Amino acid sequence: MQNILIIGAGKSSTALINYLLKHSIDENWTITIAEKDLELAKTKINGHDNANAVPFDVFDAELLNNLVSGNDLIISMLPASLHIHVARKCAELKKHFLTASYLTEEIKSLHGQFKNAGKLMIMEMGLDPGIDHMSAMKVLDELREDGCELTGFETFTGGLVAEESVGDNPWKYKFTWNPRNVVLAGQGSCKFIQEGRYKYIPYQKLFRRTETIYIPDHGYFEGYANRDSLAYLDIYNLRGIKTLYRGTLRRPGYCSAWDVFVQLGATDDTYEMENVSEMTHRQFLNSFLSYNPNDSVELKLAHYLNLDLDNGIMFKLKWLGIFDEEPIGLNKGTPAQILEHILKKKWTLETEDKDMIVMWHKFNFISKGEHRQIESSMVTLGDDEINTAMSKTVGLPLAIAAKLILKGKINLSGVHVPIKKEIYEPVLAELTNTGLTFIEREVEPTFY
Amino acid sequence: MQNILIIGAGKSSTALINYLLKHSIDENWTITIAEKDLELAKTKINGHDNANAVPFDVFDAELLNNLVSGNDLIISMLPASLHIHVARKCAELKKHFLTASYLTEEIKSLHGQFKNAGKLMIMEMGLDPGIDHMSAMKVLDELREDGCELTGFETFTGGLVAEESVGDNPWKYKFTWNPRNVVLAGQGSCKFIQEGRYKYIPYQKLFRRTETIYIPDHGYFEGYANRDSLAYLDIYNLRGIKTLYRGTLRRPGYCSAWDVFVQLGATDDTYEMENVSEMTHRQFLNSFLSYNPNDSVELKLAHYLNLDLDNGIMFKLKWLGIFDEEPIGLNKGTPAQILEHILKKKWTLETEDKDMIVMWHKFNFISKGEHRQIESSMVTLGDDEINTAMSKTVGLPLAIAAKLILKGKINLSGVHVPIKKEIYEPVLAELTNTGLTFIEREVEPTFY
Repeated sequence: MQNILIIGAGKSSTALINYLLKHSIDENWTITIAEKDLELAKTKINGHDNANAVPFDVFDAELLNNLVSGNDLIISMLPASLHIHVARKCAELKKHFLTASYLTEEIKSLHGQFKNAGKLMIMEMGLDPGIDHMSAMKVLDELREDGCELTGFETFTGGLVAEESVGDNPWKYKFTWNPRNVVLAGQGSCKFIQEGRYKYIPYQKLFRRTETIYIPDHGYFEGYANRDSLAYLDIYNLRGIKTLYRGTLRRPGYCSAWDVFVQLGATDDTYEMENVSEMTHRQFLNSFLSYNPNDSVELKLAHYLNLDLDNGIMFKLKWLGIFDEEPIGLNKGTPAQILEHILKKKWTLETEDKDMIVMWHKFNFISKGEHRQIESSMVTLGDDEINTAMSKTVGLPLAIAAKLILKGKINLSGVHVPIKKEIYEPVLAELTNTGLTFIEREVEPTFY
Repeated sequence: MQNILIIGAGKSSTALINYLLKHSIDENWTITIAEKDLELAKTKINGHDNANAVPFDVFDAELLNNLVSGNDLIISMLPASLHIHVARKCAELKKHFLTASYLTEEIKSLHGQFKNAGKLMIMEMGLDPGIDHMSAMKVLDELREDGCELTGFETFTGGLVAEESVGDNPWKYKFTWNPRNVVLAGQGSCKFIQEGRYKYIPYQKLFRRTETIYIPDHGYFEGYANRDSLAYLDIYNLRGIKTLYRGTLRRPGYCSAWDVFVQLGATDDTYEMENVSEMTHRQFLNSFLSYNPNDSVELKLAHYLNLDLDNGIMFKLKWLGIFDEEPIGLNKGTPAQILEHILKKKWTLETEDKDMIVMWHKFNFISKGEHRQIESSMVTLGDDEINTAMSKTVGLPLAIAAKLILKGKINLSGVHVPIKKEIYEPVLAELTNTGLTFIEREVEPTFY
């Protein structure tokens, strides 16, 4: 009998809990769900014999100690900043520990303790970071083993809404993950390497410097750059590569329309606006435009941003209701908070809506003097607004890693991210069984 | 016999020191210049009988104590963050204290101590802040005393180069003050009120939302908004006013050309660029443009920012040498630091160059049911690259305030900024005698 502790039963834990519950009888596991909202945890368990729900408070040291000591492997779905408390306890009590969040220096410093305890901690074991690492490293390692010279690597991921759930939404987008992160996306500067040159894109140009990506059976997408691609030079051992680019996928037309909010200053999160409680959508928009007693907000906006009045971007804005004299419904807020609130009125998944995760990699290499290119892609749909593609792609890598560790199929210790073959090979194989499959194809290489 | 201590003898102290030296014999003053660079201090004194130079270190508590205790009035030209050390000592030893820097909460908290000591501390006693406060409050108070209803107040200041020193420089601009502040100007968001509506301009649109300003005998200028005009609602007692706008003046054409650097991301100060030591001006520019093996940097830039190749902006950039394969000459730097370094090669005042300070206020008000408008402006030229207009306009208000305090002509105590009639009336009167004169004229009111 082995015991698994899952901390946090929120939206992103659904697929993780379901997978582990499903295997708990064959594997002889007892699963404990620790969650602040006990009712939520009970709903997720749904009366399963091998599971129990307990209340949780990360700052209750005795509770944390009891919970960790009574389990063999702990998975934390807490907010990223709280993992360190659980990680330290797992190191002390010699337990395996998994999360889907980015590895921090603070957590990296626990490597020796986990190693000495013979226990494994894997961070970045979700979708992005997670599946991106594993699916990229698989191809990169294969190419290196074949003696190929890597010349370029580009990788894009997007959390979107399924084509069938788009309806009349001209953005072809809804929030499927943290809306605040979507509104603030890209702030700061982006760095990447293209054909051996370091390139920088500031926020005010980010959504106009998109790449077009084609995925067979799914059509065209557009991608904008993520903040710092250069960090992956070392993580993926790619020093000397000529092109390295990480980005986020949207459907075509999204980025140039989103750029309207960027140019207006409507995504600014650094100051609180005045008189928010009396403000309508239209007044929110107008506060970023110059004063004129006669001109319409529509005309001022179109002129300011050099848009034709019949431009598709104008229609996207109209569809959002952003020109309407509708009360915002907040008492205070930064521009970004107010914009998020307005967008949620239209961009929230409805009961039958399916989300969609798209991941795409492009590998350029020279093999026996010949330039070649491989593209690899994964497209996954959610079942409904609870069993989302996001929940599957974040939760299943964690669940599968947990199973493999408890069955002794991954024999590593210390603190890791899933870039080692010992981790990614068995996890990717099992992911394929759950339907999360990468399709690889070789294409004619594209040159600049 | 009265004693004055001036701390700091840098570029901005020239006019201050000269004015006080000139009056020291009639007024029976001894003037001590405390300065890290003793030779510099001696140059400024130039053997004057009533003055002496001493070395200075703000963190030498005994030295500070001796210097402050031996003087009746202290003027600090130190960097803004260091004033607090001197201010505390002045409060303790009961001495008058003056600076040209912004009032901080920390310094404001000394109000009671100065008041109890019967001593006066004036902050913001330079140009901007300083002369702007005094010249604006004079008109605002007059209008209020006449029973007028204030409807709008706009104020702009610029540190420029004199028309006669422009030469072939198509920007008609050189650095006349801290170059770093010029490169970083406007980062963050701007707020102001126009016709009763709160308006916000983000950095990426700031230099395209300029106002045009005409000053008789000096022609046209353009102004961009300063960060937070709203703070002046309370400082100038303007609650309820419909339009309130503070800005910075440049010559026409500067802002749209400067916007090129903003749009490229070349004013970003948040990250260090790669390979700076091997970079040329042209490569610096190219690192913000997309990769292409054939297209020229000129064409990529023009297309990116939607400029005709024969646009005046392109010429301004060429004149700067920014398209040249000239080594930058730095080993590392943020984009903003590198841009500042490149600009200094062309934008540094030469020996015979004269700088120019322009300040302009616009007051809108209703008098006896009638809309009226007064404009008030001051234009001052420097004599050369040492006796600059900037040094006069920052130093003379301090020097004059010092004289008036020591002669008993300003009878206030506590911590103040120069918005009270007891301060601004005598200071403005004496400023006029030194040639710093405001010209007021009533014009036909402009409406939106």
